[in-house]
Amino acid sequence: MAEISASLVKELRAITGAGIMDCRNALAECEGDLQKAQMVLRAKGLAAAGKKSGRVAKEGLVTSYIHGEGRLGVLVEVNCETDFVARTQEFKTLAHDVAMQIAAADPRYVSRDEIPPETVEVERAVYLAQAKNEGKPDAAEGKLEKWFATVCLLDQPFIRDDSHTVADMVRDAIVKTGENIQIRRFARFRLGE
Amino acid sequence: MAEISASLVKELRAITGAGIMDCRNALAECEGDLQKAQMVLRAKGLAAAGKKSGRVAKEGLVTSYIHGEGRLGVLVEVNCETDFVARTQEFKTLAHDVAMQIAAADPRYVSRDEIPPETVEVERAVYLAQAKNEGKPDAAEGKLEKWFATVCLLDQPFIRDDSHTVADMVRDAIVKTGENIQIRRFARFRLGE
Repeated sequence: MAEISASLVKELRAITGAGIMDCRNALAECEGDLQKAQMVLRAKGLAAAGKKSGRVAKEGLVTSYIHGEGRLGVLVEVNCETDFVARTQEFKTLAHDVAMQIAAADPRYVSRDEIPPETVEVERAVYLAQAKNEGKPDAAEGKLEKWFATVCLLDQPFIRDDSHTVADMVRDAIVKTGENIQIRRFARFRLGE
Repeated sequence: MAEISASLVKELRAITGAGIMDCRNALAECEGDLQKAQMVLRAKGLAAAGKKSGRVAKEGLVTSYIHGEGRLGVLVEVNCETDFVARTQEFKTLAHDVAMQIAAADPRYVSRDEIPPETVEVERAVYLAQAKNEGKPDAAEGKLEKWFATVCLLDQPFIRDDSHTVADMVRDAIVKTGENIQIRRFARFRLGE
């Protein structure tokens, strides 16, 4: 099987907007051929949202969610392209669900891109050492993926349906609305923390 | 008039919880005598809140304020000492007023202590240069104070009554509730910014 570089995965991701794992699998399937991998993703419907994701999203909503009579609060900005979509009930529900997700699942970053590379390297080293100790060196990458799914909002299983990630939910909304949608930033305060 | 050092002002402030200008004035009045300055502040009622301000405030409220149908959002944590006070209408009103203040007046810091010293030095240098150009070198400190009143939440004139600062409003609440009250942190998102 061809070696799939991280930069190739990133490139495919930028073109298609598909998830990292989907891009890696598609590239592996096509032995690193970028054009073929795009076709594979499109055939699977995973690149449906992709063409939208380069477009400017400056409209949207800033939404809050307060839990436990003010013991926990979340503020989140979710962007779309037009005020029209921002005002739909569907978009409001998406923004509210994202705020509830952040309250419940306590992510530290919106996406992997936000994690300082040093932080990723430290985690990777820890999992590699653990995996070697356990005699399963191949398990390290899986553990790192699990960690991403804990700390990155987009990689987290969605609290209302954990067979999908938050990224999946955003992608669904892109397909439904026909607009680029992005979770831009969030703040989460727990009282006295 | 005695030279009043910043560290002396800070010390008096830590003891009494009074405002920076009040502390500086009291120290100037007493020629730098820390004990006398405390008496002056107490006599003026400005240290009334002071004894409270060392106490641990870990209860309170995380409150949000959303403006313009989701175009601007604020999340703020205001602390007090007991859940009992946190649940009072008075405390809820204070937290709400602070959130509205942040939305309207766009501070960058809660207090002066949060400003990186380099940032203050750059501002000071600019105002000194300006003041010299205008032939009024003494005007620099006044300009710096005005800048603090723009960027620091506690130094801002309160939007509902600009004869008082936000710090005054917090001090009033401390006196009324008998508890230490602190604005801990805030986030402010403007859509697409």
